[in-house]
Amino acid sequence: MKYGLPLLQALIEYFKKLPGVGEKTARRLAFSILNMEEEEVTGFAETLLQVKKRIGFCNKCGNFAEGEVCQICSDPSRVDGILCVVERPADIYILETASQYRGRYHVLHGVLSPLDGVGPEDLKLEQLERRVREEGITEVIVATNPSVEGDTTSLYIAKMLEDRGVNVTRPARGLPLGSSLEFIDRGTITKALEGREPI
Amino acid sequence: MKYGLPLLQALIEYFKKLPGVGEKTARRLAFSILNMEEEEVTGFAETLLQVKKRIGFCNKCGNFAEGEVCQICSDPSRVDGILCVVERPADIYILETASQYRGRYHVLHGVLSPLDGVGPEDLKLEQLERRVREEGITEVIVATNPSVEGDTTSLYIAKMLEDRGVNVTRPARGLPLGSSLEFIDRGTITKALEGREPI
Repeated sequence: MKYGLPLLQALIEYFKKLPGVGEKTARRLAFSILNMEEEEVTGFAETLLQVKKRIGFCNKCGNFAEGEVCQICSDPSRVDGILCVVERPADIYILETASQYRGRYHVLHGVLSPLDGVGPEDLKLEQLERRVREEGITEVIVATNPSVEGDTTSLYIAKMLEDRGVNVTRPARGLPLGSSLEFIDRGTITKALEGREPI
Repeated sequence: MKYGLPLLQALIEYFKKLPGVGEKTARRLAFSILNMEEEEVTGFAETLLQVKKRIGFCNKCGNFAEGEVCQICSDPSRVDGILCVVERPADIYILETASQYRGRYHVLHGVLSPLDGVGPEDLKLEQLERRVREEGITEVIVATNPSVEGDTTSLYIAKMLEDRGVNVTRPARGLPLGSSLEFIDRGTITKALEGREPI
């Protein structure tokens, strides 16, 4: 390129580090910053810094937290005794937005993936076992993604907890609402037929 | 939503102000910030502030500039006497990346659009006329977008400059390279046939 402001180029490079943002999108985003009000940009930059500085992980469940313990772990109105196990803190956000689940969570911070060199010791599995032991957990819902790695991880957890007298479950697999049979893969259709329910 | 860190929610709102970023993308981008290294986020925030603080518009052509006059206006190696008129500073970036154009630019900061209440007095047309008069311009290439508004604006400029003895041109319209006739609209095909060239 024969022309370019180094500062603008630097901003484009930062935008390119975000997931799903390529060269063209990054450029468009950077140009849009130049058209924003100054106080808006200041607020944006300040929020970025604050988010990174003040949000860490919950000591107990591994969720994002401002402080030592997250909102959900410190909420007395949540139901004790049930844990929902997820791969990433972002999954909690999704479940909280979409569902009526009122129990607690546990974040693994990954899934078992031998090909990527991720073994049981890389996940928060020991902490999970300890919580099941110490918190009187009666049910563990393993809400890892319905992928090979997610399934493997759920089997591992079921095996790990089999002598603990705890019910280990998994969210139902089947047809997503609003979908069309035409676009659904064979694996999902097989699962949906296996798990058929009376009307 | 029953759960949410206010800080994270604030960051999501800022991302949503960027063009083409909806709720889901904003959430994904905000979560990715939490996974970035601290110095990376600091650099990102700092660059945002600097870009907004230090980049303004060139006094002469209306391009983005650090300081009074932009890189292109102050570059002695550029060809004088030719002006390329564009809608937005971002268009200069695109033309500089893609073309061999060596002349100067003039940014209108918009296009004529009566429906949106944008008239000639809202664009940098007076400045364009003055530059043509004072800088000994022999050719004005009107590179506004090939839209109704862009075409209207180019006609207005041609009319405005008709007594100035300056050549007013427009980039060729026709089939984009690498495209397929199947996917090209009728207007473009008509233009391409009208402007056909010997092989």
